[in-house]
Amino acid sequence: MFHQIAVVGCGLIGGSVALALREAWPACRLIAIDRAPVVEAARRLGVVDDGGEDLALASGAELIVLAAPVRQNIALLQELVTRVQGSAVVHDVGSTKRAIVDAARALPQRLRFVGGHPLAGAATDGVEAARADLFRGRPWILTPSPECDPADVDRVTSLASAVGALPRTMDPVAHDRLMAYLSHLPQLAVSALMQVVGERTGSEGLSLAGTGLRDTTRLASSPPGTWRDVTATNPEALGVAIDELTAALQRLKADLAVGDDLQRIFDDAAKWKRTLDESGTGGRGRGES
Amino acid sequence: MFHQIAVVGCGLIGGSVALALREAWPACRLIAIDRAPVVEAARRLGVVDDGGEDLALASGAELIVLAAPVRQNIALLQELVTRVQGSAVVHDVGSTKRAIVDAARALPQRLRFVGGHPLAGAATDGVEAARADLFRGRPWILTPSPECDPADVDRVTSLASAVGALPRTMDPVAHDRLMAYLSHLPQLAVSALMQVVGERTGSEGLSLAGTGLRDTTRLASSPPGTWRDVTATNPEALGVAIDELTAALQRLKADLAVGDDLQRIFDDAAKWKRTLDESGTGGRGRGES
Repeated sequence: MFHQIAVVGCGLIGGSVALALREAWPACRLIAIDRAPVVEAARRLGVVDDGGEDLALASGAELIVLAAPVRQNIALLQELVTRVQGSAVVHDVGSTKRAIVDAARALPQRLRFVGGHPLAGAATDGVEAARADLFRGRPWILTPSPECDPADVDRVTSLASAVGALPRTMDPVAHDRLMAYLSHLPQLAVSALMQVVGERTGSEGLSLAGTGLRDTTRLASSPPGTWRDVTATNPEALGVAIDELTAALQRLKADLAVGDDLQRIFDDAAKWKRTLDESGTGGRGRGES
Repeated sequence: MFHQIAVVGCGLIGGSVALALREAWPACRLIAIDRAPVVEAARRLGVVDDGGEDLALASGAELIVLAAPVRQNIALLQELVTRVQGSAVVHDVGSTKRAIVDAARALPQRLRFVGGHPLAGAATDGVEAARADLFRGRPWILTPSPECDPADVDRVTSLASAVGALPRTMDPVAHDRLMAYLSHLPQLAVSALMQVVGERTGSEGLSLAGTGLRDTTRLASSPPGTWRDVTATNPEALGVAIDELTAALQRLKADLAVGDDLQRIFDDAAKWKRTLDESGTGGRGRGES
């Protein structure tokens, strides 16, 4: 279907897309656009055929996959308008969708842009951690806008299917609201918890912590670069989710103060936890480590 | 040092105390007081020599270890006053200390009570999960009150040392404040998060979650019985900790609303997370699963 595909940002996700496509479509030429040492590593690892730092290298591609942090992807859209001149379909794989979909629609010239978000990730970032099977069996959400050409949406759908993912369509605002709960709020809650606990107990106090705190705060080691972009491009939905969590916590405080022993919340949380653990495939979300 | 020790509440912690003592002091007779099937299991597993449901079985013991949920331990103090009549040292191993220490001091007759909290636990509860090495190398906090006989504190210290733990003394209020941050707040934050995320996304939404949410919410499956007692007996310190966490979350919301990308909180949290992971022995806290 494609003779040439360019991946802009060749880390874990971009590199895994390239590796998976190499298996699925061996005749397709794969180009990486990233900093020179990253492209060099991607070439050495057999992830891509060629690449470099210049976005012009993407001009021969029929499909351009933006896999840099979200705000970089958004900045790239403007550059691509002047470079690819409508000849390529542009797809992004960032963790928030409203901001980039809005940015694409606001461009002065039309770009054949279709947004997306593969729900996959791994503990380690970087092209060295790329895996051809990263997306296998995982949802790949597409967030086309009304003006997208259905043929372009089909092209991106075929990409998602080729790497073994399960493509499905979602409204970008609904996507960001869902991810605020499933992914962004947990990240912020863990970071805030780790900050409060660290500052109030200090390193001597932390030395007495058990595995409960350690496991709960695993996400506090997540790569900050990715998360700063994710949270900065989803402030509205995250703000609502933060308010709901703080309201739930304040209800717990009020219940404790009147001698309630929180049976309902513990039962409720345990019930949802069972639902969570019994559902889905347990693949990692983007940027989660 | 002791000819007979009674363990009241023979679950993971009580059973592990008995197993460890059997190795350390093989001549000491060990009695379990719990529901009949639990005592039967403890006997069958070789955890204790004898036992039953009647607290009177503890009347011959020189040391009585209370290892039931915190509020049951508190209720047992009153009963013990009339039964043991000052002949035995009573030690509890519950996860909060102010409530039981206050209750012991308020008894009409003096009980030779010394409070404590071994910082150890395991994913599975129950006497079947008991292990002789559960406390090895882990802190065992003692919270004696001013009127405790130093000889009784020494007796309890020798128990903690005998099972391989590292005894240390702490003020009960300081203990509860520290544990509010290290253990109780993480538990409540996870339960509140799981409740909010479950209710807002439903089971269909949860099916799209990655391992980040799954790992973060591990504590939501904790045994509710233990946690209801722990949180209900530490409402003041927990209330303060909840306020600090909600304030931190609301600061994040305000920062996001003005376009800040949260670099400081992510860096701060990552720094404390490194301190946490590099410190201590990583043993499990009480009631954590």
